[in-house]
Amino acid sequence: MGKIPVWNPAIEFIEREALEQLQLARLRQTVEWALKTPFYHQRLTEAGLTRPEDIASLRDVRNIPYTTKDDLREAYPAGLLAVAPEQAVRLHTSSGTTGMPTVIYHTRRDIEHWTELVARCIVATGATARDVFQNMTHYGLFTGGLGLHYGAEQVGMLVIPASSGNTHRQIQLMKNFRTTVVHATPSYLLHLYEVLVNDGMTREQLCLRKAFIGAEPHSEQTRRKIEELFGIKAYNSYGLSEMNGPGVAFECVYQTGLHLWEDAYILEMIDPRTLQPLPEGETGEIVMTTLQRQATPLLRYRTRDLSHLMSGHCPCGRSHRRLARITGRSDDMLIVNGVNLFPSQIEEALMKIPEVGTNYLIQLEKRGSMDRLVVKTELCAKLFMGDRQTLDDLRERIGERLRSAILVKPAIELHQPGSLPVSEGKAQRVLDLRPAF
Amino acid sequence: MGKIPVWNPAIEFIEREALEQLQLARLRQTVEWALKTPFYHQRLTEAGLTRPEDIASLRDVRNIPYTTKDDLREAYPAGLLAVAPEQAVRLHTSSGTTGMPTVIYHTRRDIEHWTELVARCIVATGATARDVFQNMTHYGLFTGGLGLHYGAEQVGMLVIPASSGNTHRQIQLMKNFRTTVVHATPSYLLHLYEVLVNDGMTREQLCLRKAFIGAEPHSEQTRRKIEELFGIKAYNSYGLSEMNGPGVAFECVYQTGLHLWEDAYILEMIDPRTLQPLPEGETGEIVMTTLQRQATPLLRYRTRDLSHLMSGHCPCGRSHRRLARITGRSDDMLIVNGVNLFPSQIEEALMKIPEVGTNYLIQLEKRGSMDRLVVKTELCAKLFMGDRQTLDDLRERIGERLRSAILVKPAIELHQPGSLPVSEGKAQRVLDLRPAF
Repeated sequence: MGKIPVWNPAIEFIEREALEQLQLARLRQTVEWALKTPFYHQRLTEAGLTRPEDIASLRDVRNIPYTTKDDLREAYPAGLLAVAPEQAVRLHTSSGTTGMPTVIYHTRRDIEHWTELVARCIVATGATARDVFQNMTHYGLFTGGLGLHYGAEQVGMLVIPASSGNTHRQIQLMKNFRTTVVHATPSYLLHLYEVLVNDGMTREQLCLRKAFIGAEPHSEQTRRKIEELFGIKAYNSYGLSEMNGPGVAFECVYQTGLHLWEDAYILEMIDPRTLQPLPEGETGEIVMTTLQRQATPLLRYRTRDLSHLMSGHCPCGRSHRRLARITGRSDDMLIVNGVNLFPSQIEEALMKIPEVGTNYLIQLEKRGSMDRLVVKTELCAKLFMGDRQTLDDLRERIGERLRSAILVKPAIELHQPGSLPVSEGKAQRVLDLRPAF
Repeated sequence: MGKIPVWNPAIEFIEREALEQLQLARLRQTVEWALKTPFYHQRLTEAGLTRPEDIASLRDVRNIPYTTKDDLREAYPAGLLAVAPEQAVRLHTSSGTTGMPTVIYHTRRDIEHWTELVARCIVATGATARDVFQNMTHYGLFTGGLGLHYGAEQVGMLVIPASSGNTHRQIQLMKNFRTTVVHATPSYLLHLYEVLVNDGMTREQLCLRKAFIGAEPHSEQTRRKIEELFGIKAYNSYGLSEMNGPGVAFECVYQTGLHLWEDAYILEMIDPRTLQPLPEGETGEIVMTTLQRQATPLLRYRTRDLSHLMSGHCPCGRSHRRLARITGRSDDMLIVNGVNLFPSQIEEALMKIPEVGTNYLIQLEKRGSMDRLVVKTELCAKLFMGDRQTLDDLRERIGERLRSAILVKPAIELHQPGSLPVSEGKAQRVLDLRPAF
């Protein structure tokens, strides 16, 4: 274990029993904080929970009602603030593009705790103070930029706060400062590689060793594609703004699932329809309870992210349980002519096909009473020059591959490399043009 | 003095003699650091300075050669790095839009020192941990966003990292979280006010009390206009990326010039043509030497910013000398048919005219062999509906006012409110369409 890079060994290798005692103490503390908010005061009182001591064991977390995204929207702007406003030193809001915004407040200690969690994640991948870290995600209310920034600065990396966008400049910065680690969405890294090649450069002109990829669901195939294109290791990052942002769960050097910091969060896995707990290994919705955040405690928050808990132990020896990669969101399931499918299934199948390029788009249309699924995909640079028969064969082959993955045969459109729209933040992969009734 | 808000009384009220001793010790330390960089090692050796002890008194700073923006460009990316790369935790680069970029590195202590300087500035305006601070400047490589962010978090304000742009959302955030202090460019605040009014809102729906304005030169009239429109106090901020960014000099509650933190910087004022020192009160180019920055020490950096040192003492009692507001840059002087003038003179004259709105543009054209100066200005909302004669009279009156201010009579174009282009960062006020030879 001596060689495993680790930020806080005492807590990362803590015995399960000690961890659970810590969780129980912190859960009670969190309930005490939550009772100070108008929202939870009412919600917990209705559930018969009026004192921290009403939580006798960790299992009692199940007596607490769920909190949903809609609850957060209704509590906006101050219904979930558990401290005096002058004790808060930061707030982050969601963009509010899909409804009322939500807000999370932080005290100075909350920020310190968040920063420590991100530092643990960074060090778990083997990155050190000797690395040059280029942070390609947006800084500001979006939590990805400032979250990783604080953690990386804590570790002592040389941080380049590049923020998002301006791909040519990103590449120049990577070259000039010999960037060894980047943080970006997987789709943006694929885009950046295309720009690099189009500019006549090769990966050998960079010093890149690692990428932290997160903020949008992606397949194992996409990760491997990034690793192969750049000749690096790409580590999966999981976070969501309601749980601070990045720093919730991260892969270690072994890349065998994402260690979730259980001293900071209680993790439950439920069936999103029945709301019943699921056994280890079964895929369901992640439910999380904060254990350290004083300014905005959240109890049993339904993340809508789908994953499963992994069994066994990671070779790194950390005692915190591991999540499998996120396979989708309980609310981004698509229903096409009655068949349930997730965009992640389409991506996984596409990325196994060598001729397929780095960008794709899923489009849903209505034809009469029937749904029509169109998958638009870019091809690798060389292949687009093929003759018509080759392209027709490829189109047929992609269609069949997808049919076996999702039980629906989509119409396939092949596009020139670089011709589909690119987003600099989270990729927009689904365009649903069906009338909403 | 008990009621003056102050972050670090020991250093802000330090006796001049003790301050100068501190400066001398830190200057020697800085020369020692600088000698570790390839750039200064050569430059200082040529000047006969090879040891810190070669600086016998503060006056000896004049034996050090000047450093220019071009020097920084030539030293890019690592010629001015004075520590081992793993000791640096941050770098900021200029955009490089007007040539090669420049870079400033920071150690962890450098960031702490910068943060302390910004905290002093914030507290000097009377802002406290009870304030809600909305930071409307860009986060990332631009130093304005992260610089104020760190200082405000240090003070313990509730920081909303809004970043730049999206004015409707800025206003919503201001309303929802009862923002009391904002940081923005003066031109953006004037734009925000117009959007507020166009949205049918009034300033009474906001809780705003103070604005920190900087990052672009502006006139006293513009400051007063912001104060009157919002019913707030606006404090002038001076900083430049080569000297960290914000936190170099700031107005205190008395708004009588900007206190420059002389424990962190040695300030000299020179004639930009002769390079000779200027006496107090005379306008010249600001030259600055860092005293605390280990990773990128800069000696006698020619800022190209024009100002003058103010005489006398500020009622606040701080011993650090005061700069007058920046009136322009030595390299943004315009020569129009042989007459020297600064954009700031035009702005100052325009903002004294009540009918003039919040946005304007200075355009230079060539007509045959003659320069033509066009000043495009927006009018206040109500006035644009006036009859032709009224507008003609106004145009004539504005032209005459400008002639008396700048000795050149420009062509005046009157524009509808909101019709001239708005920049979300530093305002682009001058459009020089003359051929460059």
